Amino acid sequence: MSRLVMKFGGTSVADLERIRNVAARVKAEVEAGHHVAVVVSAMAGVTNQLVAWCRDACLLHDAREYDTVVATGEQVTVGLLALTLQDMGVPARSWLGWQLPIRTSSVHGSARIRSIETEGILKRFEMDGTVAVVAGFQGVADDGRITTLGRGGSDTSAVALAAALEAERCDIYTDVDGVYTTDPRIVPAARKIDKIAYEEMLELASQGAKVLQTRSVELAYVHKVRVQVRSSFSDAPGTLVCDEDEIVEQEVVSGIAYSKDEAKVTLTNVADVPGVAARIFGPLGDAAINVDMIVQNVSEDGERTDMTFTVPKSELERALNVVEKARDSIGFERIIKDTNVAKVSVIGIGMRSHTGVAKTMFETLAAKGINIQVISTSEIKISVLIAAEYTELAVRALHTAYGLDAA
Amino acid sequence: MSRLVMKFGGTSVADLERIRNVAARVKAEVEAGHHVAVVVSAMAGVTNQLVAWCRDACLLHDAREYDTVVATGEQVTVGLLALTLQDMGVPARSWLGWQLPIRTSSVHGSARIRSIETEGILKRFEMDGTVAVVAGFQGVADDGRITTLGRGGSDTSAVALAAALEAERCDIYTDVDGVYTTDPRIVPAARKIDKIAYEEMLELASQGAKVLQTRSVELAYVHKVRVQVRSSFSDAPGTLVCDEDEIVEQEVVSGIAYSKDEAKVTLTNVADVPGVAARIFGPLGDAAINVDMIVQNVSEDGERTDMTFTVPKSELERALNVVEKARDSIGFERIIKDTNVAKVSVIGIGMRSHTGVAKTMFETLAAKGINIQVISTSEIKISVLIAAEYTELAVRALHTAYGLDAA
Repeated sequence: MSRLVMKFGGTSVADLERIRNVAARVKAEVEAGHHVAVVVSAMAGVTNQLVAWCRDACLLHDAREYDTVVATGEQVTVGLLALTLQDMGVPARSWLGWQLPIRTSSVHGSARIRSIETEGILKRFEMDGTVAVVAGFQGVADDGRITTLGRGGSDTSAVALAAALEAERCDIYTDVDGVYTTDPRIVPAARKIDKIAYEEMLELASQGAKVLQTRSVELAYVHKVRVQVRSSFSDAPGTLVCDEDEIVEQEVVSGIAYSKDEAKVTLTNVADVPGVAARIFGPLGDAAINVDMIVQNVSEDGERTDMTFTVPKSELERALNVVEKARDSIGFERIIKDTNVAKVSVIGIGMRSHTGVAKTMFETLAAKGINIQVISTSEIKISVLIAAEYTELAVRALHTAYGLDAA
Repeated sequence: MSRLVMKFGGTSVADLERIRNVAARVKAEVEAGHHVAVVVSAMAGVTNQLVAWCRDACLLHDAREYDTVVATGEQVTVGLLALTLQDMGVPARSWLGWQLPIRTSSVHGSARIRSIETEGILKRFEMDGTVAVVAGFQGVADDGRITTLGRGGSDTSAVALAAALEAERCDIYTDVDGVYTTDPRIVPAARKIDKIAYEEMLELASQGAKVLQTRSVELAYVHKVRVQVRSSFSDAPGTLVCDEDEIVEQEVVSGIAYSKDEAKVTLTNVADVPGVAARIFGPLGDAAINVDMIVQNVSEDGERTDMTFTVPKSELERALNVVEKARDSIGFERIIKDTNVAKVSVIGIGMRSHTGVAKTMFETLAAKGINIQVISTSEIKISVLIAAEYTELAVRALHTAYGLDAA
């Protein structure tokens, strides 16, 4: 029988009524002939309460104790879901991270999964098709302490379990019904994507689409786990994240992403000499500050130039400090910061074999009078930095220009 | 260094402020030179919520899943207490039942402790005196599933841990400041007892005094664990439960207990022949109904008699059904039930070597015009059944008669 992993987030298991809804969906898949493993998060709000208690108990808390406390959220949900399934006549048992076990690194609070032992689950699958209800977000370190994977880690648990079980598919149930060509809140004509390639989903996830956690997509990509994103509140089919070979009609551009979480930093009048970039970005890298886009203006006199880059808004103050400290070694005139910017990205595997994608982007933005401040590209993505106030205008115009609007 | 086990119940860890109070008490014992293991319950109210969820999820719930859910209550508390201790500069780590492990039988929901592995705790004691914060009420069965010991089981966890650690003492912190000669709510002159023998405490616990769980006293008795009952809200010394050898000035009577949880059943006109008692109490025993006191009236004609016994009120209806079903084999005229009764007990190891204790009891009750309906005795206890309305009057009169009133 084929194996299926289903994953439900906190809002899907927020109370007993919703847990019954989840159980009904699981039951339907069992009756459709699958061996099912379900991965669940904590009931919505519970993790926040547990985190707040830890913070109140000890500001600089011991991450091992933090994990012990926070992991209880999922422990409650697996027990309740197993009971609810049993109440519906479906054999089920709960598995905690340490029980399977799900072995992880010992970086408490953001551990990485190393291996998942599936023997216990498979034995029960063979015996009587018992549904495995597995606690997401948690594992166990080599010393026997409970670990957690960090926020949103349940997606990663589900994909890793699907890989270990060699499951046919991993269905991630969430509060949206799939991955869209762009944010439907700003583009009502946005379309749900039926199939999207791993690489595209990775870019979408890291460019601001919050449907799937980036790490879980990476894991799916590496282990070729077919992931379906779908709604736990409707029966509509969702979006399948899969290998590009499985996508027959590949669009040139699959989606438009945007992010307002970036800040722009410009250093003026920097010496235009070899090694200056290293003197700027070396210290920023040492401080673990994530520099995204970089542009160096063409030097007019061949001696001085301006250097512009972006960092996450949350790391701006730290970045400015680092640069200020390195002022002597870099040698610049002024630091100009700008938090009023947005990054808009056009993403599509089809770019590899189609020319003119960038041209369309630049022409579309120019036609709307939107100035491009910084450009960066990859094989399957073009990103531009623009003034934040133009974000919605730009996203809508690009969505139309690439033919993504719903008919 | 001497080892100390401290145990705090749900009201003592009900919120972070109270947990800080607990941590301060632990810190004081560490600074006084002890190696300390602390056993804690779930925050007050949490277990009830978890139990209600399980019941709502599935009425006839799988006790293994129930235990998985309910054990999270203590898991949260151990993490938060460890963090709070660390915040106060005291090295501490939490231990869950499966981590030590605390091995139990597999009777989920009311498991019995089989062994406690203390190696991990002792290693940290030796290393840097790390306080062991141990989850009460839980353990792990041979198949790796989490078990719970049943309500009030944290007292048992603490005593068992004290035995395994060969601790100097096990301090049970609660919301009263010790064991009293009787219920201070009805006898204001009741005195706190400084030292009480295991056997007496066992009788007190099973006769209605709710300070300690009966099982934990049994365990302390068997392993000779010195248990101190004391208040987590005051610094007053509590009551030491210990071997009778340790009690220099043994009173004849240590305490007066009462219980209104009994019901009386009388079968009239029963044949006064050998074997009739077996025909009554055999079926009741088979139905696991706990018969306490039994009295058979003297037969006037040598042929027929009345048989009276008591059962817990909660089991009365079941008991009546059992007897009614056995009507033909027993052969009685009528069943008379009376729930308007109370059992009053006088308890003291001194009775073994002192005569006249029973006489004092009967005379005292007679002087107040209280009729005794049933009497039962053991080596260190005399119990009588009386009309419930006389309970307070009887307890007060006996407390005075045995010289227990505070000066």
